[in-house]
Amino acid sequence: MPRHTPHLYLTGPWSGGQIELGEQDRRHLEKVLRLERGAAVTYTDGAGRVGAGVFDGDVIERGSERPLDRQNELTVAVSPPKNNSRLRFVVEKLAELGVAHLVWLVTEYSEGRPPRPEKAAAWSQAALEQSRGAWLMSISGPLTIADLDGLGTPLFADHGGGVVDDLHLIADPVLCVGPEGGFAAGEIPDDAIRLALGTTILRVETAAVVGAALLVSGTSQ
Amino acid sequence: MPRHTPHLYLTGPWSGGQIELGEQDRRHLEKVLRLERGAAVTYTDGAGRVGAGVFDGDVIERGSERPLDRQNELTVAVSPPKNNSRLRFVVEKLAELGVAHLVWLVTEYSEGRPPRPEKAAAWSQAALEQSRGAWLMSISGPLTIADLDGLGTPLFADHGGGVVDDLHLIADPVLCVGPEGGFAAGEIPDDAIRLALGTTILRVETAAVVGAALLVSGTSQ
Repeated sequence: MPRHTPHLYLTGPWSGGQIELGEQDRRHLEKVLRLERGAAVTYTDGAGRVGAGVFDGDVIERGSERPLDRQNELTVAVSPPKNNSRLRFVVEKLAELGVAHLVWLVTEYSEGRPPRPEKAAAWSQAALEQSRGAWLMSISGPLTIADLDGLGTPLFADHGGGVVDDLHLIADPVLCVGPEGGFAAGEIPDDAIRLALGTTILRVETAAVVGAALLVSGTSQ
Repeated sequence: MPRHTPHLYLTGPWSGGQIELGEQDRRHLEKVLRLERGAAVTYTDGAGRVGAGVFDGDVIERGSERPLDRQNELTVAVSPPKNNSRLRFVVEKLAELGVAHLVWLVTEYSEGRPPRPEKAAAWSQAALEQSRGAWLMSISGPLTIADLDGLGTPLFADHGGGVVDDLHLIADPVLCVGPEGGFAAGEIPDDAIRLALGTTILRVETAAVVGAALLVSGTSQ
């Protein structure tokens, strides 16, 4: 199998010709990826800058670097699923898809709790490296639906909702995904956009990923 | 939280006014869902027929039944991920989305192995009940790319591929998702359609779900 060049998340800002590796990164590169000194790597600060450099044991020798344009500024607000593997799935998959912001949403029927922030950040960082991205997904909350005011245009994932054409024309979309029990009566603001995600009933984490995929690709049904 | 009426997968064909419950189903309804005798349930044979009936301890009393039209005949051929939770994810999420057939695909760089058939079937059945579907996803393979001939129109998920308009016009689409290492040079037939799934690099299971979601919704990017 062809081997991909490892892609590393290394917090910035960087200065000088080298980036110091933390103990954990060094161990990961040596023990897990079995990188030898002199091996090529790519790296990102998670804020849009990517570079190509060389692993040199304790440091990365910096090479050519460039800023990348952000592809989207999608926010996904999700009521946390109860199960840990489903929580992890939400974080990992949304980060892979290049979602900009994940917000944990508290609604009337919410039952799950957000993961510990350090745990969620580690999942998000691993997905950034895996997907060779340049932007680290931010994770915040818990917020209520009212708290989302001002973040962008809310779109509520709703089985009874409609097909939305030209999703890519919506400025700063905020996809809101409720808990297994759905949103309570009256919880979705009257004037909000309701977005149906296919014809089947989806679990919370599936709705979040499918909705994000449609928004990233700019279309619904 | 409002409680959904339980939706049960009960293998057909049914005859007479009652459907006998297996030991496992009965235990699940009594112990896990804590259903009382006389409770309303819906049920399906997984072959397009759904009904509304009543739980009566050892049997389901059959009520009104009707056949449902199939929404799609999507086949997804996936190189199995190595990790068990990712394997489960593929089966569960594709079943939730209403994919008709899942085929395990063997390619040059495939590393994972398909799950045991009984295990995969149990995941698929649970997702059918969860998503309140009427069609049980079939699971088969492992097959090679050559073996897929005749199953439909292959579409290869490929980071270097293009945007495909009017995906819903493709007859009997067979979405092919390769392993982490990608397809080998020459492995994708020259005349095949290559479908890009967004701008980031996706894991196998993410590509399968995102690709299926776009095909179910009939659009790409």
